[in-house]
Amino acid sequence: MPRYKLTLEYDGAPFVGWQRQANGPSAQGALEAAFLALCGEAIVAHGAGRTDAGVHALGQVAHVDLGGSWDGRRLRDALNAHLRPHPVAVLSTEVVLDSFDARFSAIKRRYVYRVVNRRADLAVDKNRAWRVARTLDADAMHQAAQGLVGRHDFTTFRAAECQAKSPVKTLDQLDVERRGDDVRIFAAARSFLHHQVRSMVGALAFVGEGKWTADDLAAALDARNRAACAPVAPPEGLYLVAVDY
Amino acid sequence: MPRYKLTLEYDGAPFVGWQRQANGPSAQGALEAAFLALCGEAIVAHGAGRTDAGVHALGQVAHVDLGGSWDGRRLRDALNAHLRPHPVAVLSTEVVLDSFDARFSAIKRRYVYRVVNRRADLAVDKNRAWRVARTLDADAMHQAAQGLVGRHDFTTFRAAECQAKSPVKTLDQLDVERRGDDVRIFAAARSFLHHQVRSMVGALAFVGEGKWTADDLAAALDARNRAACAPVAPPEGLYLVAVDY
Repeated sequence: MPRYKLTLEYDGAPFVGWQRQANGPSAQGALEAAFLALCGEAIVAHGAGRTDAGVHALGQVAHVDLGGSWDGRRLRDALNAHLRPHPVAVLSTEVVLDSFDARFSAIKRRYVYRVVNRRADLAVDKNRAWRVARTLDADAMHQAAQGLVGRHDFTTFRAAECQAKSPVKTLDQLDVERRGDDVRIFAAARSFLHHQVRSMVGALAFVGEGKWTADDLAAALDARNRAACAPVAPPEGLYLVAVDY
Repeated sequence: MPRYKLTLEYDGAPFVGWQRQANGPSAQGALEAAFLALCGEAIVAHGAGRTDAGVHALGQVAHVDLGGSWDGRRLRDALNAHLRPHPVAVLSTEVVLDSFDARFSAIKRRYVYRVVNRRADLAVDKNRAWRVARTLDADAMHQAAQGLVGRHDFTTFRAAECQAKSPVKTLDQLDVERRGDDVRIFAAARSFLHHQVRSMVGALAFVGEGKWTADDLAAALDARNRAACAPVAPPEGLYLVAVDY
């Protein structure tokens, strides 16, 4: 039973998220259906992490155990042929050791959050970014964000339904960059709490709009209280860019 | 009757093109319907140029004559509220002289064509770029493209149904740049023939794939014959970026 590592791109808009669920189509379900059509096998695709409904992936990683051996490129092309009605694409496949686990072997997860900072609604980028109408001070956001980098109790930035054992995580990167109307927030860590990136982005938007100072953001972190957080940023701006092993 | 200049963004995917047509929804039609809902007036929106079905605009320009005076920002926000079901957004509005004409006053039109050069189908960028599976030599494309810059008879790169009086145009820019899998072609001219950018992109793809040399491209231009052109690139990669006045 060779194990394969798959790198995947998907548009989150039509899905209930990465994970197979009873209430609608999922990226995992689309991928597993493609394996069933291709190999006649009910394969389980183990993802590096769940993404919520509406959240996109440019580099989600999953591992699968297949009954037979496949040439990597042929497997990729054949899966993509079966995936074609769905906005899910297999970017690459490679054989890995049986000890490789997409979720537990990951040492870093990288996300980008796209804000389009303008008054007008999004047309070309609809469902691909969060439009924020009030002018954001991206430099202030970046400065304040540095207070969240490092090892902290992120309870403030954690969804009520988060299943992680501990709210303590080490955030490696939280950078804010503006290019014209585009404001991008880059976040990296070994792992994140549920809604952590979107919660941090929502809080940074408060900083960018001048509602919060960097000290207010630090105080929200110190509060270790979900009620201290700003509104969570919407899913359509979030992209899982890559998982490092 | 004050005249307003509007700068517009739209997703070309659901439209038959910029221009109002009997056979389906258009960006112009959506904008004119928003004016009717807002002002109760049957306004004609005069665009800088037609875009084909599936072609996007990041900076289409139109002019309209309104019965009354509007604050520019209020007009923009009100139009966007009425446009909301459609992927059309008014980015800005300004009062202009009656002598301003979106089409005839334009001195330069700027397009970008987005190619994603990879084997896997597009997921996040579906309907937003042209996927080309064979590896493209972007440097060779850029070098060859310089042979098209300048004043030429572009009959080879002109749609059969093109209504321009003359096939002679001056191409100011045709640059090809690669960034990872993204290959972008930047084209600028006072005006273009129908399908000219997509025809040039199709020919440059032949160069990038090694099917044509730069000399083959030059020979195709010299042939002044539609039959000498490579297949026209699909509309979903093309963006009207800006119109200069």
